[in-house]
Amino acid sequence: MSYTKINSMQRNLSMLTDFYELTMANGYFENGFEDKIAYFDMFFRRVPDGGGFAIAAGLEQLIGYLNDLSFSKEDIEFLRSKRQFSEGFLDYLKNFEFKCDVWAVSEGTPIFPNEPVVKVRGPIIQAQFIETMLLLTINHQSLIATKTNRIVRAAGERAVIEFGSRRAHGSDAAIYGARAAFIGGAVATSCTIAEQLFGIPAVGTMAHSWVQLFDDEIESFRSYARAYPENCLLLVDTYNVLKSGVPNAIKVFNEEIVPRGFRPTGIRIDSGDLAYLSKEAKKMLNNAGFEDCRIIISSSLDENIIRDLLIQGAPIDSFGVGERLITSKSDPVFGGVYKLSAVEKDGEVIPRIKVSNNVEKITNPGSKNLFRLYSNGNQNAIADIITLFDESIDSSVPYNLFDPLFPWKKSTVRNFTAVPLLHRIFENGRLVYDSPSVDKIKEYSNEQISRLWPEIKRFENPHRYYVNLSENLWNLKNSLIGKHSST
Amino acid sequence: MSYTKINSMQRNLSMLTDFYELTMANGYFENGFEDKIAYFDMFFRRVPDGGGFAIAAGLEQLIGYLNDLSFSKEDIEFLRSKRQFSEGFLDYLKNFEFKCDVWAVSEGTPIFPNEPVVKVRGPIIQAQFIETMLLLTINHQSLIATKTNRIVRAAGERAVIEFGSRRAHGSDAAIYGARAAFIGGAVATSCTIAEQLFGIPAVGTMAHSWVQLFDDEIESFRSYARAYPENCLLLVDTYNVLKSGVPNAIKVFNEEIVPRGFRPTGIRIDSGDLAYLSKEAKKMLNNAGFEDCRIIISSSLDENIIRDLLIQGAPIDSFGVGERLITSKSDPVFGGVYKLSAVEKDGEVIPRIKVSNNVEKITNPGSKNLFRLYSNGNQNAIADIITLFDESIDSSVPYNLFDPLFPWKKSTVRNFTAVPLLHRIFENGRLVYDSPSVDKIKEYSNEQISRLWPEIKRFENPHRYYVNLSENLWNLKNSLIGKHSST
Repeated sequence: MSYTKINSMQRNLSMLTDFYELTMANGYFENGFEDKIAYFDMFFRRVPDGGGFAIAAGLEQLIGYLNDLSFSKEDIEFLRSKRQFSEGFLDYLKNFEFKCDVWAVSEGTPIFPNEPVVKVRGPIIQAQFIETMLLLTINHQSLIATKTNRIVRAAGERAVIEFGSRRAHGSDAAIYGARAAFIGGAVATSCTIAEQLFGIPAVGTMAHSWVQLFDDEIESFRSYARAYPENCLLLVDTYNVLKSGVPNAIKVFNEEIVPRGFRPTGIRIDSGDLAYLSKEAKKMLNNAGFEDCRIIISSSLDENIIRDLLIQGAPIDSFGVGERLITSKSDPVFGGVYKLSAVEKDGEVIPRIKVSNNVEKITNPGSKNLFRLYSNGNQNAIADIITLFDESIDSSVPYNLFDPLFPWKKSTVRNFTAVPLLHRIFENGRLVYDSPSVDKIKEYSNEQISRLWPEIKRFENPHRYYVNLSENLWNLKNSLIGKHSST
Repeated sequence: MSYTKINSMQRNLSMLTDFYELTMANGYFENGFEDKIAYFDMFFRRVPDGGGFAIAAGLEQLIGYLNDLSFSKEDIEFLRSKRQFSEGFLDYLKNFEFKCDVWAVSEGTPIFPNEPVVKVRGPIIQAQFIETMLLLTINHQSLIATKTNRIVRAAGERAVIEFGSRRAHGSDAAIYGARAAFIGGAVATSCTIAEQLFGIPAVGTMAHSWVQLFDDEIESFRSYARAYPENCLLLVDTYNVLKSGVPNAIKVFNEEIVPRGFRPTGIRIDSGDLAYLSKEAKKMLNNAGFEDCRIIISSSLDENIIRDLLIQGAPIDSFGVGERLITSKSDPVFGGVYKLSAVEKDGEVIPRIKVSNNVEKITNPGSKNLFRLYSNGNQNAIADIITLFDESIDSSVPYNLFDPLFPWKKSTVRNFTAVPLLHRIFENGRLVYDSPSVDKIKEYSNEQISRLWPEIKRFENPHRYYVNLSENLWNLKNSLIGKHSST
């Protein structure tokens, strides 16, 4: 999990960019905007699956990309062959030096619609260019962390293990999906390289093919038990779970594991009626004196099926969750966007807005900051406040909240602490941030999620967490909307 | 699009494997199965979105992985640190030499449930180990090619451009998703690196941020037109499509494009009521003498929205399709599986089966082959036949088809040509296959799809294409089911 190893995984992905980033960059260059400073915000508008919050993830990989951003001779030649770019612009790319300021919320932070999750300030050519990779990196990992956390909340005290590599959308989706799943609360993964890269425990024992290779099931179990007596977990559904799989497992536990001084680790059921089979298998294991034998289930699981199994009292210890986690099957798009919010003119910040007939789609203008207000009583998060960048929040006086979509809905917060959520990541292109380990990220995430009201965490119609604008930002936004409506 | 450049994108992904592949491999090694020969089939059970066929894709990337498969010193050290693997096994990996035979259907081939798409024969340790990467590579690209083809069929003669990078599940999902989308029928992509790697045309012009950077919309259009007079496509929905965007575009076309001797390329609308806006914009463009100005639409499109727009008579020339294509949003899992079908014992092939209470989940045993029967009349594909490996199909005599799930449903085919679909890719670990270019793959795919009955191509309740078993395979399967039922 060293930076060295992670860096060895990085390829030159500078050309992984929407082509319009390049046509615009060249256009900016040709228009003399080489040094024009612009501000962009990355934010999202809707929590997947109708949930009450999302979890930010992917920052460490975004940092790796930004820190290494450069254009190879091959890239320049390729662009020249398109005959759309000026030699001056190609020279600019050849001598590219990243000069942006970047702020972002920590990985693992619960995040909410419309608040800035990443903020970039820098030369428009650069701040614009990084859009595609910034979005795909944060969108992907935030999607998987958010989905996994739903599944983990459904499983309660029971362990969730990420089993999805084979159904992931390519290698990165498997590798960084495993990372995001761990941040979201999975305890382990089947994806070996995720342990090598990030220290996430990789686990697994046998597939049906192991059982099929042998002439009969019991012989396959025996061979496995002899190879792994300390960690003997047997897959019992290749032929018939209750008639053959579990009886054979019990026999092999008795004959090969117990005599060697070990206890069986567990059995895994990968098909069939999981509630019924797990209950019957548990009875058989208990009757054989293996009350401590764990039951692992895997078979197209998600948060709804897991809840249903637990409601039925299925005696399951761990859930292996694959395709529905690693693709966020029920809602596979995290719709993060990256919008220009301001430009600088003679050193002054000029806010910009994107208006829309849909009021929820109007952007928040200006260079901004983000605060989370926690109650000094129960320590719960009360609301997030998006402010202009130079504003502070004075917690010694009551703070007036109002809903940006329904500004007549007001309330007052007292006895709170305001914590800024955006951390400085790059300063004038220089990395000034140390990414925490995935263990630390997960710990922080758990702690932060524990401070959300339960009403925000429920699956069905969760309460909408308050994301408010400061009065100054609200006034600025209104004046810009007014200006554009009158044109 | 040279192999050199593609190889430079490859990382050491040998540890991108489910951990159980390693525990099993070590177990096989410890059980003396180092040279045991096994057969595996990759197949899938259900076409995404309830479609009538899928499109195979991803083979070229699978070949790259298999051809480079090796274990670095770092990998061996990592595995040793797990304290689960014998030194003999780690030595085996250190000196790993790929020895498998691999067959596969060509990329672009329409494929159907339950037929072998990739087939592997080799030492069980190796044939087993490659499962994870084989599945994730073929699953991902087949998913995106299949989804794109639905979208392309909905768009009819109009162009579909893949715009999804920012919502892809990580970098590979963007890069290889663009590749698969092209195979599935997209004419271009926004993903620049896909042109650099595969020669897929990368296109794009401007985002809202370009418009916002300038003090007003018309100035932003003017600057763009001067930078790109030959290829001037303007994004008209930043403020108001009909009141500001289209009138400003027409003004700039007249003032900056026509005088330079060019014609405008088009306008793009990315939000709002696309049917209404495109019709009104078309009228305005026509009235201004720009009948040849193309209208490009992009905004959470998919095959259903595209059909609906066309039914409404929206005058759209190209569709930019993003998140719903690149994630196959409505059905983001391609459920390909990899199952052991036989082992060799003293040179003899011993078929193996995985039984299940669900008859559709019972595997087809043995070493197999796959033929497609085409009518000598209209050249259409009639049925696919899965046979045992040493069987041939004699097209000089009528062939009896019967449904493997409903064997009493029989019919006879006459006047047909039987074409084997599985090509030899690796022979004893040596690559013996040249991957065609993506252009050739797409051409082949189009030709093959044109030979499917329209009833198989419709979206709602498509006719189920016949995938039959030869009588020999059917008899073998029944005898093995009988054997396992009686235990």
